[in-house]
Amino acid sequence: MRQLLFVLLATTVSVQAQPQDSLIRYVQPLIGTAKMGHTFPGATVPFGAVQLSPDTDTIPYAVDGKYNPDVYTYCAGYQYDDPTIVGFSHTHFSGTGHSDLGDFLVMPTAGALQLNPGVAEAPQTGFRSAYQHANEAAEANYYRVKLDDHQILAELTTSTRVGLHRYTFAGQEEAHIILDLMHGIYNYDDKNVWTVVRVLNDSTITGYRQTNGWARTRTVYFAMSFSKPFKSYGSKSFEDESVYRGFWRKFDQTDNFPDIAGKKLRMHFDFDVEVGGQVLVKVALSSVSMSNALANMEAEIPYWDFDRTKRDGRALWENELRRIEATLPTEADYVNFYTAMYHAALMPTVYMDLNGQYKGLDYEVHTAKGFTNYTSFSLWDTFRAFHPYLNIVNPSRNADIVASMMAHYDQSALKMLPIWSHYANDNWCMSGYHSVSVIADAIIKGVYQGDAQAALDACVATANYRRYEGIGDYIDLGYIPDEKNGTSVSNTLEYAYDDWCIAQLAKYLGRQDIYDTFIKRSENWRNMYDSSIGFMRPRHIDGTFRKDFDVLETHGQGFIEGNTWNYSLYVPHHPEGLMEVMGGRARLLGYLDSLFTMHLPDKFFANTEDITREGIIGNYVHGNEPAHHVVYLYNIVGQPWKAQERVRMILENQYHNGADGLGGNDDCGQMSAWYLFSSLGFYPVSPGTDEYWLGSPLVQSATINLENGKRFTVEAINQGAKNVYVQEVLLNGKPFEGYKLKHSDIVNGGTLQFRMGSKAKK
Amino acid sequence: MRQLLFVLLATTVSVQAQPQDSLIRYVQPLIGTAKMGHTFPGATVPFGAVQLSPDTDTIPYAVDGKYNPDVYTYCAGYQYDDPTIVGFSHTHFSGTGHSDLGDFLVMPTAGALQLNPGVAEAPQTGFRSAYQHANEAAEANYYRVKLDDHQILAELTTSTRVGLHRYTFAGQEEAHIILDLMHGIYNYDDKNVWTVVRVLNDSTITGYRQTNGWARTRTVYFAMSFSKPFKSYGSKSFEDESVYRGFWRKFDQTDNFPDIAGKKLRMHFDFDVEVGGQVLVKVALSSVSMSNALANMEAEIPYWDFDRTKRDGRALWENELRRIEATLPTEADYVNFYTAMYHAALMPTVYMDLNGQYKGLDYEVHTAKGFTNYTSFSLWDTFRAFHPYLNIVNPSRNADIVASMMAHYDQSALKMLPIWSHYANDNWCMSGYHSVSVIADAIIKGVYQGDAQAALDACVATANYRRYEGIGDYIDLGYIPDEKNGTSVSNTLEYAYDDWCIAQLAKYLGRQDIYDTFIKRSENWRNMYDSSIGFMRPRHIDGTFRKDFDVLETHGQGFIEGNTWNYSLYVPHHPEGLMEVMGGRARLLGYLDSLFTMHLPDKFFANTEDITREGIIGNYVHGNEPAHHVVYLYNIVGQPWKAQERVRMILENQYHNGADGLGGNDDCGQMSAWYLFSSLGFYPVSPGTDEYWLGSPLVQSATINLENGKRFTVEAINQGAKNVYVQEVLLNGKPFEGYKLKHSDIVNGGTLQFRMGSKAKK
Repeated sequence: MRQLLFVLLATTVSVQAQPQDSLIRYVQPLIGTAKMGHTFPGATVPFGAVQLSPDTDTIPYAVDGKYNPDVYTYCAGYQYDDPTIVGFSHTHFSGTGHSDLGDFLVMPTAGALQLNPGVAEAPQTGFRSAYQHANEAAEANYYRVKLDDHQILAELTTSTRVGLHRYTFAGQEEAHIILDLMHGIYNYDDKNVWTVVRVLNDSTITGYRQTNGWARTRTVYFAMSFSKPFKSYGSKSFEDESVYRGFWRKFDQTDNFPDIAGKKLRMHFDFDVEVGGQVLVKVALSSVSMSNALANMEAEIPYWDFDRTKRDGRALWENELRRIEATLPTEADYVNFYTAMYHAALMPTVYMDLNGQYKGLDYEVHTAKGFTNYTSFSLWDTFRAFHPYLNIVNPSRNADIVASMMAHYDQSALKMLPIWSHYANDNWCMSGYHSVSVIADAIIKGVYQGDAQAALDACVATANYRRYEGIGDYIDLGYIPDEKNGTSVSNTLEYAYDDWCIAQLAKYLGRQDIYDTFIKRSENWRNMYDSSIGFMRPRHIDGTFRKDFDVLETHGQGFIEGNTWNYSLYVPHHPEGLMEVMGGRARLLGYLDSLFTMHLPDKFFANTEDITREGIIGNYVHGNEPAHHVVYLYNIVGQPWKAQERVRMILENQYHNGADGLGGNDDCGQMSAWYLFSSLGFYPVSPGTDEYWLGSPLVQSATINLENGKRFTVEAINQGAKNVYVQEVLLNGKPFEGYKLKHSDIVNGGTLQFRMGSKAKK
Repeated sequence: MRQLLFVLLATTVSVQAQPQDSLIRYVQPLIGTAKMGHTFPGATVPFGAVQLSPDTDTIPYAVDGKYNPDVYTYCAGYQYDDPTIVGFSHTHFSGTGHSDLGDFLVMPTAGALQLNPGVAEAPQTGFRSAYQHANEAAEANYYRVKLDDHQILAELTTSTRVGLHRYTFAGQEEAHIILDLMHGIYNYDDKNVWTVVRVLNDSTITGYRQTNGWARTRTVYFAMSFSKPFKSYGSKSFEDESVYRGFWRKFDQTDNFPDIAGKKLRMHFDFDVEVGGQVLVKVALSSVSMSNALANMEAEIPYWDFDRTKRDGRALWENELRRIEATLPTEADYVNFYTAMYHAALMPTVYMDLNGQYKGLDYEVHTAKGFTNYTSFSLWDTFRAFHPYLNIVNPSRNADIVASMMAHYDQSALKMLPIWSHYANDNWCMSGYHSVSVIADAIIKGVYQGDAQAALDACVATANYRRYEGIGDYIDLGYIPDEKNGTSVSNTLEYAYDDWCIAQLAKYLGRQDIYDTFIKRSENWRNMYDSSIGFMRPRHIDGTFRKDFDVLETHGQGFIEGNTWNYSLYVPHHPEGLMEVMGGRARLLGYLDSLFTMHLPDKFFANTEDITREGIIGNYVHGNEPAHHVVYLYNIVGQPWKAQERVRMILENQYHNGADGLGGNDDCGQMSAWYLFSSLGFYPVSPGTDEYWLGSPLVQSATINLENGKRFTVEAINQGAKNVYVQEVLLNGKPFEGYKLKHSDIVNGGTLQFRMGSKAKK
C-alpha cells in the first residue's frame, strides 16, 4: 500500500507543477500556522467564501463549565505541531485572536466505521488520522496530505463558494466518508442550535447548520455531492433522542433515512473502493438556502475535474499577486512578501450567493445590487493598514467592503456600523468604531463611489450610540471613566481618532456642523494624558487619575492588547500635538528610543496577548496592533534614520519563512499589510488623511499595477542588507522633500526612488 | 374599579349584538373545552392561520425527565375548569389528542412587573390571573374575559393571519404587556430551539420562534404592533447567559435593547394607562419571514378598529355557516348543529402568506400557484367524514387541501404524502396512509381538478414506501406480523382500505396495472380475521395467531384507539365480504347488537384513550374514530331501523351544549362532521365510493347551498324526538329504493324527503 501511495504522490506533484515565472510559487500558506499566527494552511481563492482546511484538533470551549485555554490555539483549526488531523472543514478565519466557524467537517476513512474523532495520542481510537509534514503540501488553492491511519491521499481545492475534495484510496477495502455536523472551532457544548440534512439521491445531500457561537445567530446552508454514488449511508445523534417529538419511531432513522435533523449529528457515507480508487466531494455553501447552495455548486464547479478547479483558483491568485511585481533581495524575502500578499487577500470573505442573495442582520434575504457583499471585518486590526492597502492595490474590492458596511448599518436593529462583522452578526469584538476610519479613508481617497453623505450620517449615528461601550460618558465627560469600563483609556484614544476621521469626512463633504462637533471630540485624547508621569492613564469620574497603575502591565490598566507605553503614542491623527503635550521633540525621541530598547521584565510576557515573546522588541509589541504606526513617528522628531533602521529591523525580526514565521496573530491581514507597506517604503500613519509616511524599503524594486491602468514603481537604488538608510528620495526624477507621500502621488502613477546607504543621513 | 369595569362589559356587549336572523349566534366555541373535547374557545376565522385563544395553564411535558400526564389535558391550551388564565397565544389545534403550538403568549398586567406565570393556586405569584366564567364570552371570532387580578378586560378577534387584542384597563396605574416566548403547548424543557426579537420602533417589534416539538423543525415569524407607544421595554433570558458568546457585555441587554436572541426569553412592554384606557395589540404570523409577517399585518388589519375586524371575521363565519340552512327541533339542536359546522371549519389552517409564500418541507420558500396552501391534516381522523363533508359543502376548499397534500409530497425527502401534516413537517401520528382516501374521494367526486395521474402516482409511491410502519412486511406477507409492530392489526386493516381507494382511483383513471395490484392488496383484511374466535387478531410471522389476546382490551392487542370489537368491523370498502367471512347476516347482526348493548367492565374505561366514559355506548366507542361507520352497517343486515334509532341515540347522547358537550376529542372536525352527516340523514361509509348510506335525519329540514349554485334539500316529514324511524324516502318526489345515496344525487341539486314515524318499518 505504502509503495503505491508514493506513486500517487508523485503523479500529483507533476500535475501541480507551475511555470517558473509564477508568483504563486512563493506563497507558503503554512507560514503562521505554528504558535500564535492563527493562519490556516488549506485551500481558498482570493477573499473566497470557502476556506477548506484541515483541522488538527477539536477542542471543547469549556471543560466542566470552565473556559479551556487550549481552545485559543485553535482559532484557525490547525496547529502545525499537532500529530493528527480530524478532518477538513469549510470555513476558517485567518489570524484572529478569538474564533468560530469550522463548518461541515469531512473526513475520509478506510476500514471499519468510526463515528468518534478519537484522541490525538491514539488516533486509531477514532476517525482522525496521524500525518507527517513530509507528506503534506500547502499552496495557493491547493492542500495535500497523506492520512497515515487510512492510507488515503487527501487533496483540497476550491472555487469562491465551493470546496472540492479528492480522496485517493491506497487500499482495496471498505471506505467511509464522515460528515461531522457537530464539529466546530470554538466548540461550545451547546453551540449547535440545530442541524438538518436531506439526502436527495445516492450522491447528493443538502442541509444546514445553525450555531450560537461568536456569531450569536448564524445559519450556513450546504449542498454536498459525491463523484461516486454511496452504497449506503447513516446518521447518529449524539444527544438525547427525545428531540424527536413525533412518531419517528415508525422509521429506522439510523440507516439510509433521508430526512434528518437534530442538534448533534454525524453522518457516514459508505463506499467500496479499489486500489487507487478516487472519490471526489463537492461542498457548496450559502447563507440563504439549500437550493442556493446547490445552484452555487452547479454554477461554479459543474464538472468533476479537480485539476481544472485547482488551476482556475491558482490563476485567480496569480492575478491577485501580480498587482505588485516586486524584485526582492532573497528567495526568503519573496516568500515573505508574496505570502503577505496572500494573507492580505483572505479576508474579508464573500458573503453572497451567485444570484446576489445573502441573509442580512435583519434575518431577511437581501440581494446585493451593484456590489459584492462581504463579511468578517476585524476592524480594530484592519483599519490601520489593511484597508489603506486595498485602497491602493485593490480599491474596487474596498469600495464593495464599504458598501457592505452600509448594508450592515441599514439592517442593524441598533443602526450601527459594524464593529466586527461576522456572517450577518456583529460579535462586537475589540474597541473603537473603526468602520468610520475605513469609510472616511475610502471616500477621501476617491475609492468609494456610493452615497457619501449617507455614509457620513451612518458614521455620526454610530459615534453617537450612547449605549455602546462608554460612548455616552465619553460624549459627556470627554473621556470614559475608569469606573465604567475596563479599557477606558484605549477606548477614549481610539474614539478620539475615529472622531477625527468623521471630522475629516465632514470637512470633505462640506458638513461644517458635523466637522465642528467631531474635530472637538478628536481632541479628547488629551484628557487621558497624565503629565505627572508622562503617560496616558485611567481617570476617574471625578477627574482624578487612578492611583494604582503599572505602566508596563497590559492587563487591567485601562487598555486592551497593549500597555500604556505602547498606547500613549496612539494619537495617529495629531502626533505633533502629542509631541507638544509630551514636552517636545527631545522627550518624544527619548520615549521612542526607550520603547524599542528597554528591558521588559519576564513577568510581563505571560500577560501580553496574542503574540510570542519574539513578537516583542524591547517594550515595543509588534505582534499586537496599537503601536503599528509608532516606528514612523521618528520622522517628526527629526531622526528619520531611526525609523528607517527599525522598520528594516522589524521586517527582518518579525516576519520569517516557516510555520512559526509570524510573531503574532496575522489578524485578518493587518500584520501582513504592515509588512507590505513597510517593504514598499511608506506607511499610512493616520488613515483618513491622504498621506503616507516614509520609512525604508525592503524591495529592490516594486511596481504596483493600479486598477486605473497606471503603474506606480518604487525603486531602492543601492539596496542591500546593510543599506537600510535613505540617502535621497526622488519622485518622478525630482528630489522629494519631507516624509509625507500623497495618495495622489501614487494613484497618478510614477516612480518613487530611494537611494540607499549604510550610514544614516543626519 | 370594579364598577367601572361592568360599565365597560356592558358597552362591549352592546357592540357585539347581532341581528336576530344570524346563524353565528348559535356558535358556542366553549363546547368541548371541558374534559376530553380539546377544543379552544378563542377567536379565529374559518380555517384561519391564527387561533388567538386563552391558555389556562402552562404544563411542562415532563417533570424530572418523566412524562407528565396532565399535559394531555392541555392539547388546546384551555381547560374549562381551570381557575386562571396565563395569557393569550396565537396558534392552537382543535380537538387533537396530542399537541404543540401555543406561540407568542401575550398577557396584559396591572401593577408591578412580573415575568413569571406563577401558579394556579396563587395567581398573584405571577402574571397569570384568576377569572370567572360569568365574565367570559366566547363567540365566533370574538373572545372576552375579565382578568380579575389585573382588573383588565381582555378582548380578542382575528383576521386570517393576524390576531388583534384589545385590553381595557380599569385602573389608572403602571401597566405591562408581557410577551412570553418560552410559553408553549406541550412544553418540552428544550422545545424552544431559538428565538429572536427585534424592536423596530416604540410600537413595532418583529421576531421568530423556532421549536422542536411535535413538529420537529418549525419556525414561526411574527410582527407585533401596539396602538400606543410603550414608554420602555425589556427582556429576560431564563437560561445560562453564556448563549451570548460575543462581546455583548458591551451593552445592557435587559432594558430597551432592540436586538434580542436566545432560547428562553420573556419580554415586557411598559405603559402608563388612564382609567378605562385601552391598548390594542396586533400580532401577525408568517412561516417565511418577519417582513412577510409585517406585510400580512399591514394588509389584513391596516387600522386600529377592533370592532371592524371582529365584524369582518364574523361575516366570514356567517357565510360559512349559511352553506347549510337548517331547521332543527330545538334551540339546543341549533347550537349543536352550527357549533359542529364551526368546529368543522377550524382545521386544516391556511399555511401561506398573503403574497402566496410559505416555507415547505424542504425548508425552502415556495409560492403557492393557483391554490391556497393548508397545513394541519389529522388524516387518520378526518379522512372518514370531514373531507367527504367538505366535498359536498366546501369542495373548493378540499381541492386546495389536496393540492397542499401534493405540494407536501413534492417537497418530502421521503416522497410520501402526508400522514399528519404539521407546519411543513410530518409528525407521523396514527396509522394508515389516508391521504390516498382523501385524494381518491376528491378526484372520483370531481372535486380536485389538478393532475389526477400525478396524484395517483403519489398515492402508489406512498403505499409502497416499505420502510414506513410495516408496509414492507404488509406487501410481502399480506399482513403486518405482531412481532414487527404494536398496532399490526389496525395498520393492516387501514392499509387494506387505503389500497382499495388507490384501486378505485386507478380504475377511474384507467390504470389497470395499478388497479390489479391494489385491489388485491385491499383484500388483506382477510388475513387478520381469526374465524376460530370471530375477531380480527394479531398474527405472527409464521401465520399463527397470537395466543394471549383480550378482545375487550384496547392496549397492546395490535390495535390503536380501539379494541378488536370495534376494529373487526373496519372493512368499510367491503362490508358484504366481511359479513360473509363472519358467517353471514345473522352473525353480523348479533355482533352489532352486542357491540351496542354489552356491558364493558369498568377496568377497560381507564384504558380507552381520548374519551370520557360517556363517549362509550355498550362497547361501541364513539369518542374514537374506528367505529364511526359501524352503526350504518345495520343497513346490510336488513335491519336499517336499528341504524336509524342508534344514529339518533348517538346524536342525542354524544353531542351536548355546554363545555363538556363532546364525548371525546373533536379530532379536527371529524366528530363534528359525523354529527353533520348523520343529522342530515346519510353518511360516507366508504370514502372513495360516490355513495352515502342512509340513516335517520335529526333536522326538520336542511338546504345545502352548493358551490355550483344548486341547492340540495333534506326534509324530514313528521319529524319528532320519538319519530326516529324512516317510513319512506323520496328523492325529488319519487320513491327512493335501497340505502345508498349517490354523490351525483346531491350535487345535481334536488330534494331528499324522509317520512318519519315512531315505529320501525320492518
